[in-house]
Amino acid sequence: MTLSIIIIGDEILLGQVSDTNSRAIARTFTALGWEVCAIRTVGDDAAAISDAVRHAVAEADLVITTGGLGPTKDDITKRVLTDIFGGGMRLDSGVTENIERIFALKGLQLNDLTRQQALVPENCRVIQNRFGTAPVMWFENAEGKVLVSMPGVPFETEGMLSLVPGGVAEAVKLRFNPDLYFRHRSLMAGGISESALAERLEEFELSLPENLHLAYLPQPGLIRLRLDGRGNDAARLDVDFDDYFVRLRDAVGEYTVYDGDASAAEILIDALRRRGLTMASAESCTGGNIAHAITSVSGCSDVFRGSVVSYANDVKTGVLGVDAITLATDGAVSEATVRQMAAGACRVCGADCAVATSGIAGPGGAVPGKPVGTVWIAVAAPDGSVTASLHRFPGDRSRVIERATTTALLSLAAALDRSDCCRK
Amino acid sequence: MTLSIIIIGDEILLGQVSDTNSRAIARTFTALGWEVCAIRTVGDDAAAISDAVRHAVAEADLVITTGGLGPTKDDITKRVLTDIFGGGMRLDSGVTENIERIFALKGLQLNDLTRQQALVPENCRVIQNRFGTAPVMWFENAEGKVLVSMPGVPFETEGMLSLVPGGVAEAVKLRFNPDLYFRHRSLMAGGISESALAERLEEFELSLPENLHLAYLPQPGLIRLRLDGRGNDAARLDVDFDDYFVRLRDAVGEYTVYDGDASAAEILIDALRRRGLTMASAESCTGGNIAHAITSVSGCSDVFRGSVVSYANDVKTGVLGVDAITLATDGAVSEATVRQMAAGACRVCGADCAVATSGIAGPGGAVPGKPVGTVWIAVAAPDGSVTASLHRFPGDRSRVIERATTTALLSLAAALDRSDCCRK
Repeated sequence: MTLSIIIIGDEILLGQVSDTNSRAIARTFTALGWEVCAIRTVGDDAAAISDAVRHAVAEADLVITTGGLGPTKDDITKRVLTDIFGGGMRLDSGVTENIERIFALKGLQLNDLTRQQALVPENCRVIQNRFGTAPVMWFENAEGKVLVSMPGVPFETEGMLSLVPGGVAEAVKLRFNPDLYFRHRSLMAGGISESALAERLEEFELSLPENLHLAYLPQPGLIRLRLDGRGNDAARLDVDFDDYFVRLRDAVGEYTVYDGDASAAEILIDALRRRGLTMASAESCTGGNIAHAITSVSGCSDVFRGSVVSYANDVKTGVLGVDAITLATDGAVSEATVRQMAAGACRVCGADCAVATSGIAGPGGAVPGKPVGTVWIAVAAPDGSVTASLHRFPGDRSRVIERATTTALLSLAAALDRSDCCRK
Repeated sequence: MTLSIIIIGDEILLGQVSDTNSRAIARTFTALGWEVCAIRTVGDDAAAISDAVRHAVAEADLVITTGGLGPTKDDITKRVLTDIFGGGMRLDSGVTENIERIFALKGLQLNDLTRQQALVPENCRVIQNRFGTAPVMWFENAEGKVLVSMPGVPFETEGMLSLVPGGVAEAVKLRFNPDLYFRHRSLMAGGISESALAERLEEFELSLPENLHLAYLPQPGLIRLRLDGRGNDAARLDVDFDDYFVRLRDAVGEYTVYDGDASAAEILIDALRRRGLTMASAESCTGGNIAHAITSVSGCSDVFRGSVVSYANDVKTGVLGVDAITLATDGAVSEATVRQMAAGACRVCGADCAVATSGIAGPGGAVPGKPVGTVWIAVAAPDGSVTASLHRFPGDRSRVIERATTTALLSLAAALDRSDCCRK
């Protein structure tokens, strides 16, 4: 089953905005067993859209287009699709109701331009857009080739792509493989490079049956492994899928940091919450990024008390209570300093545990024996013990900060797992 | 002059990685006066690449491809281009030297697979890739159509795109318009929405001659305006361009926050550095993102002392010295609290000035009168005065945090401009 994607919009050709829709569509349908044969990007131009649609319909079983459906003058996609699939236009009362509902929610006045969005080609089936006013339109020609026209707004496209009832992926599944079932589940791995993990999992990957697939989704310091499965026999798929997921977890072994899909901050928040503990941080080279990662997660306030970003040495001594003599003799980027920073963060923020960082993010600041990327990380555990570790992270300033942040978050989570300490 | 872009790589069709090259190419060449007519993405498949190249060469004056040039087995682009442009293959000694130089720099051993990257089509001119091992190849057919094959690694493509000597944009300019000159200059605007700014600048935009163009590059809370100009008479272009840039600055008026291209953090760092001042921050709803934005800028340590991320009320009182009675009566999200936070950050970090935030980033936490997006921002100026402002930012948690961060950074910079205070 082959899929061809068409992205419509002058703003993409001008380089004004990034196209994220094609990747979202490709990921969704690749996981559902489709092969994406091409992605075309064209402007808001009738001839170019028409040419791209004819090529795509000829080469693929399914064509998905995004964009060119808004109420503004440059939106000519509907006219082109009516020319290709035949018929006239009709007013769709469901779309009108949807537009009225959305405008009422926002307290906005409806104008005639927006009302025209309810005018759709006679030869299409409307899939109601629950995330915006432009309708999703489903076309099918005499040879059974399907074209789905979706809105260009990424939020709307991503929402309507999903497998949930009424979504585009569900409609495609019902049309092309009504008896196909899907399973997917993620595992987070850390403390290992992607290539080393791939080597470790080589045997497991070779053992996978044809209907199961393992995807690597790496981010700095953390690798998401997603097992995808599909099959016509739901019960059989369940048994096989669960069996191979257990084998995957065994193969990843001690590098498993979380069973599920989560960011490093979410893994730490979960580890704290399960134990009823609170945390704090003291940050030098990560410069607030640990606190930012944690506070990006909604509802973190039950476990996160605060952070002291001690960029200047005076703040390390004055606020965190780091010994001035330690700073003078060992330096800011040292085991002794980072240990005192972690203990200080715990104390001044009234937290059960803490993590601290001190290092050289670059490009300046390197000294003999301490190259750019040198980072000390200390963890103050709930039992009062403090441990520290030395790291050398590769890459530029932003990558060093990212890697140090992820490693610090996972170090504290691992320390909680190890100590198995629980206040509750 | 029309340009067609082809992105090659299975990893894009599978949705594993985002294509950022097409946007980088589109932006670069749109600014140079080219019209991008299409972007095609195809897999590592000879027939698909060949088909895309033939279409692109037929429709455009210039074709740029990226990807399919690495030393691995799926890289068949060179073979396809040799089939289309004719001739055999030859070993390029310049490419061999470049590969040896890069491997020596990294301390890596060269293998035969990598050496084969120096094998290039006879009918191409090599542009040396200064950022990696895969050569940039320039083809030209009998009708004067040009195809430039670039590597797929974004870092290499972006590096080689630039107008600097030896880059692809320079080579294209020399080939297609050797006597064309370019100018561009940016201005940062803040405190105004993109649509309100567009309305304000409508008259200016209408007054622009055909060879000058204004681009809006908005980010949350800050809009970059870039004026692009081109012309065959360098002296005349300089005069016109400078004249219209002054008019642009006048039209933006009080919403101008910086003359040049800079992030909000860079604008603030520059304002502090020019005055020899240091700053600190106290963050509740921004959760460390202000400190992260500043410390993302290399060399910020001369102006940034630190930040207290006071998520818990105890940290606001214990570390920043916020009055417990104020917190109990006015609440954490209040003018009185955020003023004391700013003053406290100044004091405990030993800084000349500070900015503080307290608000409701959502999705939870809203109370009557304080909906999600409510943010108080306080600025403690170097003269000891503290001012506060109330904001309502739209969007989800991450957008509220982003907008609050940008607004806080620009508020402190604006306060320094207003007070015109200078310690030096």
